[in-house]
Amino acid sequence: MRDAKKILLTEKEMPGQWYNIQADLPKPLPPALHPGTGKPIGPDDLAPIFPMGLIQQEVSQERFIDIPEEIQDIYRIWRPSPLVRARNWEKALDTPAKIYYKWEGTSPAGSHKVNTSVPQAYYNMKEGVKRIATETGAGQWGSALAFACNLFGIECKVYMVKISFNQKPYRRLLMETWGAKCIPSPSTDTEAGRKVLAENPDSPGSLGIAISEAVEDTIKRDDTRYSLGSVLNHVMLHQTIIGLEVKKQFEKIGEYPDILVGCVGGGSNFAGFSIPFVRDKIVDKKKTRIIAVEPLACPSLTKGLYRYDFGDTSGLTPLLRMFTLGHNFMPAPIHAGGLRYHGMAPIISHLYDLKLIEAVAVHQRPVFEALISFARTEGHVLAPETGHAVRTAMDEALKCKQSGEKKVIVFNASGHGHFDMGSYERYLSNNLEDYEYPDELVKEAQKHLPVVPE
Amino acid sequence: MRDAKKILLTEKEMPGQWYNIQADLPKPLPPALHPGTGKPIGPDDLAPIFPMGLIQQEVSQERFIDIPEEIQDIYRIWRPSPLVRARNWEKALDTPAKIYYKWEGTSPAGSHKVNTSVPQAYYNMKEGVKRIATETGAGQWGSALAFACNLFGIECKVYMVKISFNQKPYRRLLMETWGAKCIPSPSTDTEAGRKVLAENPDSPGSLGIAISEAVEDTIKRDDTRYSLGSVLNHVMLHQTIIGLEVKKQFEKIGEYPDILVGCVGGGSNFAGFSIPFVRDKIVDKKKTRIIAVEPLACPSLTKGLYRYDFGDTSGLTPLLRMFTLGHNFMPAPIHAGGLRYHGMAPIISHLYDLKLIEAVAVHQRPVFEALISFARTEGHVLAPETGHAVRTAMDEALKCKQSGEKKVIVFNASGHGHFDMGSYERYLSNNLEDYEYPDELVKEAQKHLPVVPE
Repeated sequence: MRDAKKILLTEKEMPGQWYNIQADLPKPLPPALHPGTGKPIGPDDLAPIFPMGLIQQEVSQERFIDIPEEIQDIYRIWRPSPLVRARNWEKALDTPAKIYYKWEGTSPAGSHKVNTSVPQAYYNMKEGVKRIATETGAGQWGSALAFACNLFGIECKVYMVKISFNQKPYRRLLMETWGAKCIPSPSTDTEAGRKVLAENPDSPGSLGIAISEAVEDTIKRDDTRYSLGSVLNHVMLHQTIIGLEVKKQFEKIGEYPDILVGCVGGGSNFAGFSIPFVRDKIVDKKKTRIIAVEPLACPSLTKGLYRYDFGDTSGLTPLLRMFTLGHNFMPAPIHAGGLRYHGMAPIISHLYDLKLIEAVAVHQRPVFEALISFARTEGHVLAPETGHAVRTAMDEALKCKQSGEKKVIVFNASGHGHFDMGSYERYLSNNLEDYEYPDELVKEAQKHLPVVPE
Repeated sequence: MRDAKKILLTEKEMPGQWYNIQADLPKPLPPALHPGTGKPIGPDDLAPIFPMGLIQQEVSQERFIDIPEEIQDIYRIWRPSPLVRARNWEKALDTPAKIYYKWEGTSPAGSHKVNTSVPQAYYNMKEGVKRIATETGAGQWGSALAFACNLFGIECKVYMVKISFNQKPYRRLLMETWGAKCIPSPSTDTEAGRKVLAENPDSPGSLGIAISEAVEDTIKRDDTRYSLGSVLNHVMLHQTIIGLEVKKQFEKIGEYPDILVGCVGGGSNFAGFSIPFVRDKIVDKKKTRIIAVEPLACPSLTKGLYRYDFGDTSGLTPLLRMFTLGHNFMPAPIHAGGLRYHGMAPIISHLYDLKLIEAVAVHQRPVFEALISFARTEGHVLAPETGHAVRTAMDEALKCKQSGEKKVIVFNASGHGHFDMGSYERYLSNNLEDYEYPDELVKEAQKHLPVVPE
């Protein structure tokens, strides 16, 4: 009997708590600041946009936080998710490395995003919130929130980055199937959207603009709260169920990974996947390499500055200390819409600053090359965002081929690409261009960073 | 601790053999006949279109047939698949029934079809076949075969029913991602296609026409064999892994289903899911109700005649004894493309004739109503084909609500609907019509049934 293809956990083995790295950081996380006063914001500042349950998690210093039973119940629709040995791909790459992937694509919305949309909708429901507004890039987040809101009887309005809205009509339909309303951003429904459209009627949109619209929508309505699919601490917290499962799964087979790889846009799938292993680096002095992969078209970690900046384009959010390309950054229309964000989660930024994690930036054509290589050996057609992790996992496996090292590499297969076949078509028909974000634009955009007393 | 949401099997518990119901039939299956002679066809007649490994399985009377290790290896990418308790849906339907679904949508191609495409490609590879031609309706089969051929290094040509080709461009892209070539049928690549186009340039195509094209393609080329995704005995055989798993899963929780429901087009997902339970009816005199659900627009079991007919439109295939609407049947363009077939698998037809299974026919709008109800409670967005099973499972659960009976209902969730969102859009925007196949046309079509000595 050969080794198992999939390392599975039973539902009883599913983690019952999320892990909060704030309890173990060697240096505390820089606080979010009020843009008017420059002072750290408190729970009251956030109360108009988030329910208190999530605000408490945002600032909690507790190491482990219980996952309510109602949330676990929904997680069990698809969790625990499998850790899979990519043996066919190893063979095709002719590498001595062992490659594993954590497969988050079996959730109803097709990605890791439901790990946080479900608790977010839950805590809103507990506090009587009737309506949630949000933004979405590639549509992964919007559909995940639509799925979760529907389960808890909450109305859901999604501002979807226009270029993705046009490229991915089926994502909108998925949201509508779950009862949500989804419109392209910039829209005429908000001041923020109208302002962008006045300046550039053909704006392809960006996550920053869409966030501005959703936040404005929230502020203007008493019955509405806002929900963010990435960046914030409580989002990273919810996603740790991924990495906690991966740790248990490696324990089951008596292995420990040498290299972890995840893609980063706002940072949530990468954070959730890797943070339990970052803890081992801090607490147990493990030497694991943990690599965040971003697009060269949107290189916030590798080219950005570690400064306070707004989370959105219009400057409506608190200031977050993060690696940023500047909040007025306008990303190239690459096909990994979920990675087109100017900043990076404060937790990820902090871990990168502390050199607990690494970062690399890659082009989208090599990403699709890796996606095709993976699909033709392991079968699954993954999302373009995920492809960034696939590319770097492949590069590390090919380095092992050179060196002969039998490293254990694991990447987070954060979502499937069933709604992204248009980008596969562009690649397969040789119509996909690479974009590298120019250094001059980085410098220019960063001139507009908000000035805060530090 | 509440009961598990999902009943899982380990990879070691995955069945190592397929079950062949031919060994247990109370009355033998009527043989396939040669259209020229009216005599039962032998292996040699089939050798130009199928590899001998599959021909042997087609006629085998062995009760259990080993699944080669190379095939099990690939099955393990997604198998064993979960049996899931639809507790949220039960609650929404307010039924005392227990509803389970067998979830086949986690495979790389998104449906049960890979259960047979993998062994079919394998046996072709073993006999040195370099190229396989096939047809596909909704695209589920074409993508499943593309996936499998790619893994065994076989070239793959898919004739896709034109209406689906146009409605579902992402299905084609999925096939191309796995390296296959996919063209709309009727095409100009074959005599059969050109003949149809000459009579009706706007023909939406049908499975029958597409089969004619693929068979003709095969016959004309020495390096090519044909592959069929449904109807034939060896296809039903491969699919029994579904039902064998379901039996083990119910054994694990000490339950036995009262009602099994599956959708039928050619019959393969229904057969694979239910045949191990049909055996229990034959051998152990179990009283299980086993219900095949078909579209009212294509009611082969409920309105067809049990006669010998061609499997394709042009009359290239052997004659199969089956419930049929006539091989020149032209189905209405309903959205469950995979169910638009004039006939029914001989095994299913035989079991229906022996009253071991039941059949019902439903309209597509109530099907989508059920799909939405399921998606909004259990999350998964299922294929329109699968929706026929969802509808009938729902109807049976609602009957239990009336009667107060706590029946155990299980349906086969044969595939996801990620490539079918266009049909969800039509339903959600109230643009979906129901079609009922007219009795006159049934009578008319059946006048053209081939005359064979019986």
